Amino acid sequence: MAHAVERASAVRTERPDRIREILSWYASDNPGTLTNLARLMNHGRLGGTGRFVILPVDQGFEHGPARSFAANPAGYDPRYHFELAIAAGCNAYAAPLGFLEAGAAEFAGQIPLILKLNNSDSLSGGKDPCPALTGAVDDALRLGAAAIGFTIYPGSAERNTMYQEIRDLTREAKAKGLAVVIWSYPRGSALSKEGETAIDVVAYAAQIACQLGAHIVKVKPPSAHIEQEAAKKVYEKQRVPIGTLAERVRHVVQSAFDGRRIVIFSGGEAKDTAAIFDEVRGIRDGGGFGSIIGRNSFQRPREEALAFLGQVMDLYAGGAK
Amino acid sequence: MAHAVERASAVRTERPDRIREILSWYASDNPGTLTNLARLMNHGRLGGTGRFVILPVDQGFEHGPARSFAANPAGYDPRYHFELAIAAGCNAYAAPLGFLEAGAAEFAGQIPLILKLNNSDSLSGGKDPCPALTGAVDDALRLGAAAIGFTIYPGSAERNTMYQEIRDLTREAKAKGLAVVIWSYPRGSALSKEGETAIDVVAYAAQIACQLGAHIVKVKPPSAHIEQEAAKKVYEKQRVPIGTLAERVRHVVQSAFDGRRIVIFSGGEAKDTAAIFDEVRGIRDGGGFGSIIGRNSFQRPREEALAFLGQVMDLYAGGAK
Amino acid sequence: MAHAVERASAVRTERPDRIREILSWYASDNPGTLTNLARLMNHGRLGGTGRFVILPVDQGFEHGPARSFAANPAGYDPRYHFELAIAAGCNAYAAPLGFLEAGAAEFAGQIPLILKLNNSDSLSGGKDPCPALTGAVDDALRLGAAAIGFTIYPGSAERNTMYQEIRDLTREAKAKGLAVVIWSYPRGSALSKEGETAIDVVAYAAQIACQLGAHIVKVKPPSAHIEQEAAKKVYEKQRVPIGTLAERVRHVVQSAFDGRRIVIFSGGEAKDTAAIFDEVRGIRDGGGFGSIIGRNSFQRPREEALAFLGQVMDLYAGGAK
Amino acid sequence: MAHAVERASAVRTERPDRIREILSWYASDNPGTLTNLARLMNHGRLGGTGRFVILPVDQGFEHGPARSFAANPAGYDPRYHFELAIAAGCNAYAAPLGFLEAGAAEFAGQIPLILKLNNSDSLSGGKDPCPALTGAVDDALRLGAAAIGFTIYPGSAERNTMYQEIRDLTREAKAKGLAVVIWSYPRGSALSKEGETAIDVVAYAAQIACQLGAHIVKVKPPSAHIEQEAAKKVYEKQRVPIGTLAERVRHVVQSAFDGRRIVIFSGGEAKDTAAIFDEVRGIRDGGGFGSIIGRNSFQRPREEALAFLGQVMDLYAGGAK
Amino acid sequence: MAHAVERASAVRTERPDRIREILSWYASDNPGTLTNLARLMNHGRLGGTGRFVILPVDQGFEHGPARSFAANPAGYDPRYHFELAIAAGCNAYAAPLGFLEAGAAEFAGQIPLILKLNNSDSLSGGKDPCPALTGAVDDALRLGAAAIGFTIYPGSAERNTMYQEIRDLTREAKAKGLAVVIWSYPRGSALSKEGETAIDVVAYAAQIACQLGAHIVKVKPPSAHIEQEAAKKVYEKQRVPIGTLAERVRHVVQSAFDGRRIVIFSGGEAKDTAAIFDEVRGIRDGGGFGSIIGRNSFQRPREEALAFLGQVMDLYAGGAK
Repeated sequence: MAHAVERASAVRTERPDRIREILSWYASDNPGTLTNLARLMNHGRLGGTGRFVILPVDQGFEHGPARSFAANPAGYDPRYHFELAIAAGCNAYAAPLGFLEAGAAEFAGQIPLILKLNNSDSLSGGKDPCPALTGAVDDALRLGAAAIGFTIYPGSAERNTMYQEIRDLTREAKAKGLAVVIWSYPRGSALSKEGETAIDVVAYAAQIACQLGAHIVKVKPPSAHIEQEAAKKVYEKQRVPIGTLAERVRHVVQSAFDGRRIVIFSGGEAKDTAAIFDEVRGIRDGGGFGSIIGRNSFQRPREEALAFLGQVMDLYAGGAK
Repeated sequence: MAHAVERASAVRTERPDRIREILSWYASDNPGTLTNLARLMNHGRLGGTGRFVILPVDQGFEHGPARSFAANPAGYDPRYHFELAIAAGCNAYAAPLGFLEAGAAEFAGQIPLILKLNNSDSLSGGKDPCPALTGAVDDALRLGAAAIGFTIYPGSAERNTMYQEIRDLTREAKAKGLAVVIWSYPRGSALSKEGETAIDVVAYAAQIACQLGAHIVKVKPPSAHIEQEAAKKVYEKQRVPIGTLAERVRHVVQSAFDGRRIVIFSGGEAKDTAAIFDEVRGIRDGGGFGSIIGRNSFQRPREEALAFLGQVMDLYAGGAK
Repeated sequence: MAHAVERASAVRTERPDRIREILSWYASDNPGTLTNLARLMNHGRLGGTGRFVILPVDQGFEHGPARSFAANPAGYDPRYHFELAIAAGCNAYAAPLGFLEAGAAEFAGQIPLILKLNNSDSLSGGKDPCPALTGAVDDALRLGAAAIGFTIYPGSAERNTMYQEIRDLTREAKAKGLAVVIWSYPRGSALSKEGETAIDVVAYAAQIACQLGAHIVKVKPPSAHIEQEAAKKVYEKQRVPIGTLAERVRHVVQSAFDGRRIVIFSGGEAKDTAAIFDEVRGIRDGGGFGSIIGRNSFQRPREEALAFLGQVMDLYAGGAK
Repeated sequence: MAHAVERASAVRTERPDRIREILSWYASDNPGTLTNLARLMNHGRLGGTGRFVILPVDQGFEHGPARSFAANPAGYDPRYHFELAIAAGCNAYAAPLGFLEAGAAEFAGQIPLILKLNNSDSLSGGKDPCPALTGAVDDALRLGAAAIGFTIYPGSAERNTMYQEIRDLTREAKAKGLAVVIWSYPRGSALSKEGETAIDVVAYAAQIACQLGAHIVKVKPPSAHIEQEAAKKVYEKQRVPIGTLAERVRHVVQSAFDGRRIVIFSGGEAKDTAAIFDEVRGIRDGGGFGSIIGRNSFQRPREEALAFLGQVMDLYAGGAK
Repeated sequence: MAHAVERASAVRTERPDRIREILSWYASDNPGTLTNLARLMNHGRLGGTGRFVILPVDQGFEHGPARSFAANPAGYDPRYHFELAIAAGCNAYAAPLGFLEAGAAEFAGQIPLILKLNNSDSLSGGKDPCPALTGAVDDALRLGAAAIGFTIYPGSAERNTMYQEIRDLTREAKAKGLAVVIWSYPRGSALSKEGETAIDVVAYAAQIACQLGAHIVKVKPPSAHIEQEAAKKVYEKQRVPIGTLAERVRHVVQSAFDGRRIVIFSGGEAKDTAAIFDEVRGIRDGGGFGSIIGRNSFQRPREEALAFLGQVMDLYAGGAK
């Protein structure tokens, strides 16, 4: 593979103003953090568009190695994912400490990195999840990462632990010029299974992440279900449109400071390619900023994954329908 | 909207001595904190009167975005609330980290800010609430805030956690020249629902906040109910007058170091405008220092909200009955 | 009220050697701490005698404002208690953070202050009490206090938390030249109600406070009840005299390093004046170092309180029987 | 015993490139850590081969002294194990604080040391183990150790405590130029007894240790059992070969970043020598990096142990079948 | 009492080499710690012999004042114990913070001190004991102590808390040139009452303390009972001799790094003098390093105690049988 380099968007960006516009939403941040946000937005095939496709690979920790990589054994090697993200032209590559350490030097400067700072394994469980802290802001700095990543589980009885951890990590990251990406996944004894992706709950999860100071928020595509009674009354009274995925995405984006925070959507379990493209169209049409797609990328053979990610990027870039 | 600026009260204040009088109650504080207290008192339409109307917007975190903003969707945008507070001539605008970060640079110097340092969401509950820490004193400094805000729930089994958090935050804030505003809301397994606004409990909550070192205390308007048996005996024996709201407010203010701490009252759920004005009259007549009005402000259309807040300020300023 | 000043005992002390003698018991302390101990002993009507009458006012936090101050509403004002303690000639005035902040500047240098660093409210309870930390050693320094005060509840399942907090606070206070006063109140699921004031338990509580490094220990007047079986055998075998209050006080003082630590006794609930004077005589005759009298002082009208405290001081000074 | 010295592998290594190759996997580490990894790989009879035989002696803490040392009482003396490891030509000697302190000066520079930083005793138990921290990174530095060792128990309800402890210790160790060895032993209420050595679980345990940033991972030889339903489907669908020990070892090594992390295997309970040699052959043939053999070494008479360890090394070196 | 001074052993030691030999076991310690170990070994009647008789007085905290001191009321005065230890020629005097503070200045330089850093009271209990931290390493320094003392309860569910506390205190103490004495008392829900002094358990407790880095370990004289099934098999198979107290002491000393750590034995409850002397003979004959005798010393009249301690020392010195 040819040696890739992070390039400024100047060369191939049609909408340089869009990046300046998005950066203007984060006017309270220092130039170091703005620079890293810009790095994320100016890299890859979608560089300069304000749209995102990010490759996340924390499934080795979260689900175990065989469940993650046996389908495409090249993925056991941490370098594979760096290469895949670079070759596909993703905006960034996100992974836990060990996976980033195993390639950060070799691929230094070729793609912005997001260091996931907390993780759960699936060897033990419980109704109210709380990931373990597995990395630190200074690890992100020494590995040359552009951002930290962190998962919160609103709805878990352990939510305060997570909110307070990210409170401290966010303050440190911003002081040290890094960007902050929050995975906001409602889950826990306070929610039904269906409620985890309910429109009211997903919109609320986006709001919480923004209030905690996230620059970029990752949520799941919401369903039309409404979980909370008090919310249901409002959605009905105010006739908030939530019939289509695009409408729901629009509501979630609105719930993220009226669209002034970057909201991206997860791909979820590996599934039918056509279904994913439909989902991406819904996200795009609703004003979502992009996708973060793990298993659907790295569990396919490399060429297939590159073609797949290319099509997703085309959809976001407007070069496909 | 014209560009507003914080102005000293010298120009339009009828009672400059009142501010000096109030500041004299805080003689143990350093000049930095006194300056920020003065900023809060000298800003807006009530500047220089020693009365307060503050706009708080933490409902996005506490109740979720749709329940907070769907009635007036302009409120999804964090800038809306800065503008509303400035246009209405409020003394200050209070919000969690994310909401302040999203406007602090754009509106820098136009209105004193209060950074709420802890928050709860309503995706999970429990009988004994304890908010998560969501911001820090240094965040308040970097955002140019004049004060930190913090919620305690006396009556909760988790009260010690909250008291000890605010103990540390207060010490740090005072050393760094900030003012401290405590939201003191009795709640928890030790209290009945009715007891949360009982006169003995609200007065006690005001006392606790003052003893913890608050400069400004926010409580709910008290009812005539008396929750605790030991207190009831005293109220009856000493014939403490609690028949009218004004009398109850007077007792609460007396319970805040004989009126030598600033006590303001929350507006509570959105309700009938006339009822609010009656409540404000009671607060004013009882010697309360003002109101902190969230949902009743930002859930109305902007012009209506401005008119409404203007009338509340007139009531406090004595320009209306 | 005339402006009072801390005066050295040289002018009016009959027994200057007594202060030197007492200070000699604390030979491991630095000169800063010895100076503050001397300030406590040289101030007020009992200055130079080695006897103490201290005014403590933490009832606003512990019992609520109306229960504390409605009987004598002047007490809602924090300045009242400073003035009362000064006018009465108390050795010191002790209160939580908020109450001291509200007068420390105005009365600076007029009376030694003791900052209570932990407090409980009575809005919620539980069998095993543990107060919240509500102040810090640095607060004591910035307020010009001579000592920190701290409550431990031996017998509570939470005792280790309290012992470890005072361990750290004591070390810091001593390094910074402050004196340490421990309120040692046995209470908790391990003790019967009667046991809280049992002679064996009160003597044990005094010993624990001394072992934790207290300079001054405050306990309740002990009853003749013996709580613990293992202790009972010893009291009977060794025929420890505990029949009268004086004998019991003597035993408690002996249990405080054979009288080489200052032990003072609380007044407890407001009660009959004659009964209090009897109690004071018992404390005095048993070698107790004095009283710390809150509710019985500030819940009376000012003139009555001054007369009452004057008589208590006369009893300790030997000028009355 | 002749005075041994750490010698660089240059003299007797057939495959110096192998060490450089292995070090290249750790390119994100600083030269201090790489130097210590090289020390571990260049020492002893297997120096320069990239294979390992390590002597660990934490059984005194974990199982008690008599169970550990009565069979060969020379082992009560901590110096015995230093000497044994040196004489046998092990790569390193690993032990808890006390055992290393008792010989680190006398044997300074003769063998690389690994300080075990956490330990459990077997005087008390529970379903969800969590070792106590018993040493610190700075202890490793002052004792001249090359690496820290740490045990995690994936599957324990206390896993987050362990993961977060090693997160902080790893960061500190790497910043201070030490290597990190993680003992990853699945155990706890989430797993069956059989599941503790199930192939899916052992592979997952290796992955977790790598993601946490370990340079060297120690696991148990895996059985062909599959514990988790979700994993079973994948192993069957992808036909992952797990029939022989060599195949299972290969899968575990693959699960450790596709073989780019050093994975070594424990010896377990003392057992039949032939069975151990078979196990070693399986580890070797599967691409395992070596063995860490405690009880099977030090519970034999010294000469027998030396012969035994020599044969194990021969197997790894390829000088025996 | 004549003014005593710490004297080097040169004058009256028959076996100066023994001290050098013992110090050689602690070769990983810095000269500051070695100096303090030497102070402990060179002081008193047994100075220079490598044997110890230490006076510990923490019963005031642990059992209460009357149970501790009423039998010999001179002991209420903290100075009494300093004097007793000096007059008797003990190697050291060990006590909690308050007791040491009350004499450290007056008796400075006359006897090595050991500051007990954690303590339990007996006003409340529970099956799984965990003492409170009551002092700090810096307290030991400011009081001129030679060592810190710390109690662990192997077998308690709270063992990890204690192990981790002593881990941190030990590291700090060693860095600051102090010696570390661990009281290792098996106790807790995992053990039977009989098991607390079982030979396997006591030997294990000694091992744990050594592994945690103790220089001196204090255990109880072991009984011939074996508590743990897994241990029992080994004791029987290996025929470890445990029939006599001397044999059991020998096994415990062996379990303390083959005799390369100082192990001393507690006296336990006050009992028959002849029984104590027998016990001392057993300890001596088994190679124990000495005794730490509290209640049997200070609860006797002074002269009787001096005679008693003298005889114990004679037994250890070999001047009596």
